[in-house]
Amino acid sequence: MKDSEMRFATFARAGRLGWGALTEDGIVPVPGRGRSRGTLKGAIAGGLLTEAAEYAAGRPAEFALSDVTLLPPIPDPAKIFCIGVNYAAHREETGRKEVGHPTVFTRFADSQVGHGQAMVVPRSCERFDYEGELAVVIGRGGRHIGAKDAMAHVAGYSCYNDGSARDWQRHTSQFTPGKNHPGSGAFGPALVTPDEIGDYRELPIETRLNGDVVQRGSLDQLLFSIEEVIEYISGFTPLQPGDVIVTGTPSGVGERRDPPLYMKAGDVVEVQAGAVGTLVNPVVQAD
Amino acid sequence: MKDSEMRFATFARAGRLGWGALTEDGIVPVPGRGRSRGTLKGAIAGGLLTEAAEYAAGRPAEFALSDVTLLPPIPDPAKIFCIGVNYAAHREETGRKEVGHPTVFTRFADSQVGHGQAMVVPRSCERFDYEGELAVVIGRGGRHIGAKDAMAHVAGYSCYNDGSARDWQRHTSQFTPGKNHPGSGAFGPALVTPDEIGDYRELPIETRLNGDVVQRGSLDQLLFSIEEVIEYISGFTPLQPGDVIVTGTPSGVGERRDPPLYMKAGDVVEVQAGAVGTLVNPVVQAD
Repeated sequence: MKDSEMRFATFARAGRLGWGALTEDGIVPVPGRGRSRGTLKGAIAGGLLTEAAEYAAGRPAEFALSDVTLLPPIPDPAKIFCIGVNYAAHREETGRKEVGHPTVFTRFADSQVGHGQAMVVPRSCERFDYEGELAVVIGRGGRHIGAKDAMAHVAGYSCYNDGSARDWQRHTSQFTPGKNHPGSGAFGPALVTPDEIGDYRELPIETRLNGDVVQRGSLDQLLFSIEEVIEYISGFTPLQPGDVIVTGTPSGVGERRDPPLYMKAGDVVEVQAGAVGTLVNPVVQAD
Repeated sequence: MKDSEMRFATFARAGRLGWGALTEDGIVPVPGRGRSRGTLKGAIAGGLLTEAAEYAAGRPAEFALSDVTLLPPIPDPAKIFCIGVNYAAHREETGRKEVGHPTVFTRFADSQVGHGQAMVVPRSCERFDYEGELAVVIGRGGRHIGAKDAMAHVAGYSCYNDGSARDWQRHTSQFTPGKNHPGSGAFGPALVTPDEIGDYRELPIETRLNGDVVQRGSLDQLLFSIEEVIEYISGFTPLQPGDVIVTGTPSGVGERRDPPLYMKAGDVVEVQAGAVGTLVNPVVQAD
C-alpha cells in the first residue's frame, strides 16, 4: 500500500462529526484545520486526500470502530445519481427494453445511512428490496467531461445498497418516490481511493441477505461504463466534488424472484464490492 | 392588502445577495439581522415573513427593479419536486395512462434562473420545450402531512417554467436528464403569500411564447391537488422550509403541437398564474 492509498470514513463520536482513515485497528481522525479539512467532502474539494493519507499512514488508530458510528462517507452530497437497469441480466429480469443512454434518477441525501446503521422498511411499503451496487464519488467537478477523461474526476469508490420501496417505485413511471424514503439507501463503509482498487471492471459485486448470496455480478458487466455515465451526466448537469453516482445493480433483486424476497425487520443485508469493502446493515421497521 | 400580505423577492445587486418585498416601485430590502434573516429561505424557516411584511409595508422602495437582478425566490431549495402529467388535457396529449398517485421527479437547484434571466437551450438539444406551472414553496416542514393540514405548510406561491429538453427527457423512462440542464427552469418573479391569493384553485395559468398564448389552464384542473401532492410527497421524504413543489403543466406543450413548437434563442417566454404574477424570460443558446 502506498501512502496515498487509503480508505476514508466519516463518523460521529460523542455527538461530533469527524472523518479520517479507516484502518484495521480503527479510525485515525484527520484534524479539521480550516474549512476544507472539516469534512471528507471538503478535503476532496480541496485536493487534500493525498496529504491526509500521508498524515494518517504513520499514525495508530485513535478510536476503535466500536467507539464511533460510521456515517455515509459523504453524508451530504449535493447530487446523488442512481443508474437504473445497468446490467443486462437485471434489465432482462425487469422486462425493460434496451436503451441508448443511461437511465438516471436521483436520491436526496437524507435518504442515506452508513455502514452498521439501520435500513428502514417504510410505512405503507410491503415490498422493500435490496440493490447492491458500486458507488463512485466525484473528485474534481466539471461539465461536459469526455469519457476518456472521466476517471481523472473520480475520488474513489464505496459500496451502496440502493434500497427500493418497489410499491412506491411503481406508482407511476418515475422512480423518485420509491428511492427516497429515509433509511432506504446505505452507503459505505468507506471511500476507497482508485489507487487501491486498480481497474474497477475487475471488481465483483455481491449482495447477501441473512448470509445467503442473493445477487452476484461483476463491474465488467455494466451496460454503461463509469466513464460513459460520467460523460452522460456531466452533459446535462455540473458535477461537483463529493457527488455520488450509484452505478446500478446486477440481477437477483427480490422483486423478480419467485416467490419474491423482500427485506424485513430483523434481517441483515450486506453488499460487498471486492476490495472496496463490505457494507453491512440491519433492517428495522419504520415507526 | 393587509400588512402580512406580501410579495418577496431574492435579488443580486453589486455582487451581493439580498431579499425583500417586491412592490410596484421596486424592492424594499429586508435587513439580514442574524442567520435566519439573511435569506428568504431562512426567514421562512424562522417564521419571520409576517414580521418582514410589516417591516416593509411602511417603507418606500430602496432599489428600482432595473438596479437589481432578480433571482429565483429560493435560489437553493434543498428539494425541488416536479409533478408530471397533472392536468387531464396534458395527460391526454402525452398519451400517458391514468395513474393513482402523483408522478414525481426532481430538479437540482442549479438548473434554475430567476425572472428576467435567460433560459438556456442546452447543447445537443433540438427540442427545448416550455411548461408553465404554479410553484408552491413550503413553509413549515414535516413528514406524513395529511391533506387536510397541508395548506398550513405552504409559505406561498410563485410561477415556474419547467423547461424541458424533450430529447434528453425521452432517452429512457426517467425524466431527470431532460429536466436539469442549467438554465432550464425559471422560477419567479416573487414568492406571494397565500393571504394575497385566496383559493389557489381559482388561479388561471397561462404560458405565452413571443406574445402568443400557447398554454391556458386553471388550477382547479389539477388531477392531484396541492393538498394531495403534499400528503404524498411527505409520505416518502421529509419536507423542509423553502422546498419547492412545481405542480404540473396544462396542455399545449410545444412537443405535442403539429408542427411542434420549441423555444429557441431570441424567444421570450412568459408564465402568468393570475395574481401570483408573470415570469418573463428571454431564451439563449448554450455555448
